[in-house]
Amino acid sequence: MLYFKNDYQEGCAKEILESLTKTNLEPTVGYGFDQYSQAAEAKIKSLLDVDCDIHFLVGGTQTNLCAISVLRPYEAVISCNTGHINVHEAGAIELTGHKVITTNNINGKMDFIDLEKKITEHSDIHMVIPKMVYISNSTELGTIYTKKDLEQLRKICDKYKLYLYIDGARLAQALTAKSNDLTIKDIANYADMFYIGGTKNGALFGEALIIKNNELKPHFKNLMKQRGAILAKGRLLGIQFLTLFNNDLFYTLGKHANTMADELRNIFTKYKIKHFVNNDTNQIFPIINKELYSYIKDKVEFEIQEIKDEQLVVRFVTSFATTKEQVKDFAAILSNYYKY
Amino acid sequence: MLYFKNDYQEGCAKEILESLTKTNLEPTVGYGFDQYSQAAEAKIKSLLDVDCDIHFLVGGTQTNLCAISVLRPYEAVISCNTGHINVHEAGAIELTGHKVITTNNINGKMDFIDLEKKITEHSDIHMVIPKMVYISNSTELGTIYTKKDLEQLRKICDKYKLYLYIDGARLAQALTAKSNDLTIKDIANYADMFYIGGTKNGALFGEALIIKNNELKPHFKNLMKQRGAILAKGRLLGIQFLTLFNNDLFYTLGKHANTMADELRNIFTKYKIKHFVNNDTNQIFPIINKELYSYIKDKVEFEIQEIKDEQLVVRFVTSFATTKEQVKDFAAILSNYYKY
Amino acid sequence: MLYFKNDYQEGCAKEILESLTKTNLEPTVGYGFDQYSQAAEAKIKSLLDVDCDIHFLVGGTQTNLCAISVLRPYEAVISCNTGHINVHEAGAIELTGHKVITTNNINGKMDFIDLEKKITEHSDIHMVIPKMVYISNSTELGTIYTKKDLEQLRKICDKYKLYLYIDGARLAQALTAKSNDLTIKDIANYADMFYIGGTKNGALFGEALIIKNNELKPHFKNLMKQRGAILAKGRLLGIQFLTLFNNDLFYTLGKHANTMADELRNIFTKYKIKHFVNNDTNQIFPIINKELYSYIKDKVEFEIQEIKDEQLVVRFVTSFATTKEQVKDFAAILSNYYKY
Amino acid sequence: MLYFKNDYQEGCAKEILESLTKTNLEPTVGYGFDQYSQAAEAKIKSLLDVDCDIHFLVGGTQTNLCAISVLRPYEAVISCNTGHINVHEAGAIELTGHKVITTNNINGKMDFIDLEKKITEHSDIHMVIPKMVYISNSTELGTIYTKKDLEQLRKICDKYKLYLYIDGARLAQALTAKSNDLTIKDIANYADMFYIGGTKNGALFGEALIIKNNELKPHFKNLMKQRGAILAKGRLLGIQFLTLFNNDLFYTLGKHANTMADELRNIFTKYKIKHFVNNDTNQIFPIINKELYSYIKDKVEFEIQEIKDEQLVVRFVTSFATTKEQVKDFAAILSNYYKY
Repeated sequence: MLYFKNDYQEGCAKEILESLTKTNLEPTVGYGFDQYSQAAEAKIKSLLDVDCDIHFLVGGTQTNLCAISVLRPYEAVISCNTGHINVHEAGAIELTGHKVITTNNINGKMDFIDLEKKITEHSDIHMVIPKMVYISNSTELGTIYTKKDLEQLRKICDKYKLYLYIDGARLAQALTAKSNDLTIKDIANYADMFYIGGTKNGALFGEALIIKNNELKPHFKNLMKQRGAILAKGRLLGIQFLTLFNNDLFYTLGKHANTMADELRNIFTKYKIKHFVNNDTNQIFPIINKELYSYIKDKVEFEIQEIKDEQLVVRFVTSFATTKEQVKDFAAILSNYYKY
Repeated sequence: MLYFKNDYQEGCAKEILESLTKTNLEPTVGYGFDQYSQAAEAKIKSLLDVDCDIHFLVGGTQTNLCAISVLRPYEAVISCNTGHINVHEAGAIELTGHKVITTNNINGKMDFIDLEKKITEHSDIHMVIPKMVYISNSTELGTIYTKKDLEQLRKICDKYKLYLYIDGARLAQALTAKSNDLTIKDIANYADMFYIGGTKNGALFGEALIIKNNELKPHFKNLMKQRGAILAKGRLLGIQFLTLFNNDLFYTLGKHANTMADELRNIFTKYKIKHFVNNDTNQIFPIINKELYSYIKDKVEFEIQEIKDEQLVVRFVTSFATTKEQVKDFAAILSNYYKY
Repeated sequence: MLYFKNDYQEGCAKEILESLTKTNLEPTVGYGFDQYSQAAEAKIKSLLDVDCDIHFLVGGTQTNLCAISVLRPYEAVISCNTGHINVHEAGAIELTGHKVITTNNINGKMDFIDLEKKITEHSDIHMVIPKMVYISNSTELGTIYTKKDLEQLRKICDKYKLYLYIDGARLAQALTAKSNDLTIKDIANYADMFYIGGTKNGALFGEALIIKNNELKPHFKNLMKQRGAILAKGRLLGIQFLTLFNNDLFYTLGKHANTMADELRNIFTKYKIKHFVNNDTNQIFPIINKELYSYIKDKVEFEIQEIKDEQLVVRFVTSFATTKEQVKDFAAILSNYYKY
Repeated sequence: MLYFKNDYQEGCAKEILESLTKTNLEPTVGYGFDQYSQAAEAKIKSLLDVDCDIHFLVGGTQTNLCAISVLRPYEAVISCNTGHINVHEAGAIELTGHKVITTNNINGKMDFIDLEKKITEHSDIHMVIPKMVYISNSTELGTIYTKKDLEQLRKICDKYKLYLYIDGARLAQALTAKSNDLTIKDIANYADMFYIGGTKNGALFGEALIIKNNELKPHFKNLMKQRGAILAKGRLLGIQFLTLFNNDLFYTLGKHANTMADELRNIFTKYKIKHFVNNDTNQIFPIINKELYSYIKDKVEFEIQEIKDEQLVVRFVTSFATTKEQVKDFAAILSNYYKY
């Protein structure tokens, strides 16, 4: 069986496992106040070159729900309708008391015209107050934002006094995509708050939340603790992020996933299989017919995104651990299918 | 520097690191539906011999806040005033909407007479409805409950239709204490819900929540997800618990911590230093004077529990990783102090 | 100045004021346990002819947020996008922790095809669980549901095990509309829970929540108290509802508002002014041009619903207190305008 | 049957009923933006002589839960253990996510030494952050704070940067007590936020919340709406408070209740019946034996506060509506009892 189900199906990059093994029996203080966490914070700060607070958390939903909890209860976050916080977090944001206002999406990216419409529609005390914009980069459909996009979005946020929060669960893949024109400094520059994803880029687990806007900084550790989001052995997060940003491992892993996806994408294209959305990161969405689906479904693990009449939009994901052999094996499967 | 600060100051037992390393690159499905998590569940169920659901979570506060979220909003949990949920979870339980009603404690154990008083005081619609009793075993003061205690508590819970929830962050240490007369089957028998702690007993992280009462089982995974409490790479939890319950590693590690604590306890006793509370698990609470405190504080890491006039109640904790050498080194420090 | 701004712009029906005055100095017990509240409950139960619990609350948003709080945290309520709980309650439902899933609307009524699509899309533990359908009758656009509609909706709710909750803020107007084919018994028959609105139908304030489904009944008074929703002088609610259901005052007042709206509607139609939506209750939505708007805006109070290029959809509302003179005065204003 | 059960057992003062009747059919805008609410705000501001925002709410628990919702989620409110928010609001404060930290009480008043102890005990990120002190004046035991008390409390609040919030459900009775040395201006001067109670002082319902501290003012109407705490016909609150502060009706009613309580208190004292607590407001707490209790319980409505062996602490409450005849009738009952 081949696995292209997601980018968290394996454990972690070997460098990370080595770091964890090497430090395993050193005693440290807990809760992220250890020397490794501090060094990882310092390292990331030096890369971002902005005044910020950094907190390490275990997973994406946890990070999003903590981040969005900085809002006042009557304030809402705006996400495009395909956004992770709107669909796939089991109501985590609403549980914190905040409404998720949705906009249309264009290939998984926020429709800025609709955004401005939604902001201005909320105008009296009987409605929530839009206060934060949430986007993910790369998006849930594997597309990425450009520098021009973020400039435009920042202007809208400034105009209406909204915070911009970027979910970087797959930031490595976004920043190493061929068509990307953003740097991590740009992200830090445009966003009020964002997170750098580890879980989907070769860490065992872990996300680094960067808080730049001073209004959002106070007492964030208390806020995390109250949501069960401070890891006792916080060092595990520090060690992993320190390793990820050593020798650019973070980018190397992201780039690798993208490269493997490129090869996979080409295999589909070779057989004239169309893609539901054009992108150049590690998620691909081929549109296949039911016959092909039946042929491959017992040979490969992947997800069905959507069923459209006789066609299926499916999702293949590559990871830091995807090998050239696995891609070749998949090519062989397709080749066999088309032989007949 | 010696470290007796807590039982999560090191990484994990070597057996666990080996298991994680060995399985690192195997692809599995996420969110705890993998074969390792399933095997760990099956293993624990076989030990408990009750019909139950098992969920693996990352940390203690997270587990407690998810577990207590099974209550209806107007229902309250009762904890003794020293209980972890009352003091050290930054209001996590209240954030879920539930009042924590407190009882007196007797050496860290719940005062059952006060418990019954508190239950019966809540009698009209202007008050919360007591619905769950929370205890920890071993307690925050290192003491343990006896079989007779749990029998009595179960009777009270049955009388007033309350759920009994046992926080087992340090269950291994409780069950391997010299004076213990409970088995893990007994725990499963008396409790409606309890958790088996990994973080404080040699896992990198992880707690196994056991839900026995059928009323509390439905949709618990949704409840976890909504609180950011489902680990993407759920296998990491499954692998760790499978290893912990292989060859009784769980008990071996707990017993080791207790044994190291016994030795440490004797060292204090040897110098006529009294203990704030008598117990036989891995937390000890010597009462030391300020001079001794000044002498050792730069040589050993530990916590101050309470300052009483000229005396300090301090806390020393041993772990799965505490070595005989460390204990000896500490003995030498004390010996040096008393030489003069 | 004429007022057609809303149906809560005046105080209360004279019969209600008389009842309040007459009973003013009688001492009663508080919180809705008085003889008037009990009599009002008994009266309403006799009209509904179903086994139910009845609770009196002060206002609509309060009633909705209490009613929807019966859900488990991970359960969601489905409303059409124009629903009051989605738009005009300042995030009250989300504050209770519940996501509001939205469907399309057809003239303010729920699109049942879209409803079924939204239900079935929610299928895994990463998503909320749809558990309640919320509709309002009459709707926010003044339209009403038919018996056939409710039959169909009930079937969908039964199929997917959803509760049906009907917001009856303007139930009197719905049940007395010309095209209506439902009785209050039908409402009680189809719904698991619904409320009978007083505030918008001649009471000073007050809504009567009817809970029919046994699963939703337990401890509802506690749930209300916890949300600040139990009025100390609960008698005020009991007295008002007792008066409303004495001699069918409830229906008389609703019918009166509808009749005044009919007259107002005809005045607009006479001048070929189109209506944004066809309905026969007490809210009318003429589409007027900017010139007419400028002419009347200082003579009449009303709301702007939506601006469409050169046209404005405005909202005129009649109430229990609207007089024939007021309608005539408005006719004169329009007549003057069209004279030129 | 005589009624001394509480101070909200009757409707309202005749002046208030007259005002409501007189204005009943005037159309006004909703939600507290009407001319009566504005006039009431202006009137109260002129009496307080501080820069403040004023919001009218329906009841006490609703007011408390809205007021305390200004806190950040990880911030806690401190109340003495007898405080209304701790005991009698069904967990309303916890439902908003905030822990209620309790201090000892001295005759229902906060023990300031214990307060400072509780504040300083909360010192790390694993604990909630104390941020607001809640007191009620008069207290739940009918006692009142002095100017010296509030000076001292203000100093503690300033020292630790805490907000002081005063629950004035029975403020009229406190300010008109014989031993009182505070004015309403003093209350406004010492508190960051407080409310002036109407429900327990002759209004049908209603509390006026005064927000002085600028940090607590923004978007409070949104916060209220989200909690279902904005009355549609907000005028009802404005009219009542305008009437209460016209010709000092507020004080006249409070004074009347106190005077009636004085007479009642003397009747008990005459028969050597001791009081559980000494106070001079409208709640009295005689300690009676079971025989007396049995004699009067079918002749008078009152509450049992506490049962102590053979004695009962009972509570008698007088109101704006209590008459001299009622007091005399009660005197006759006691006289009859002691005759035998």
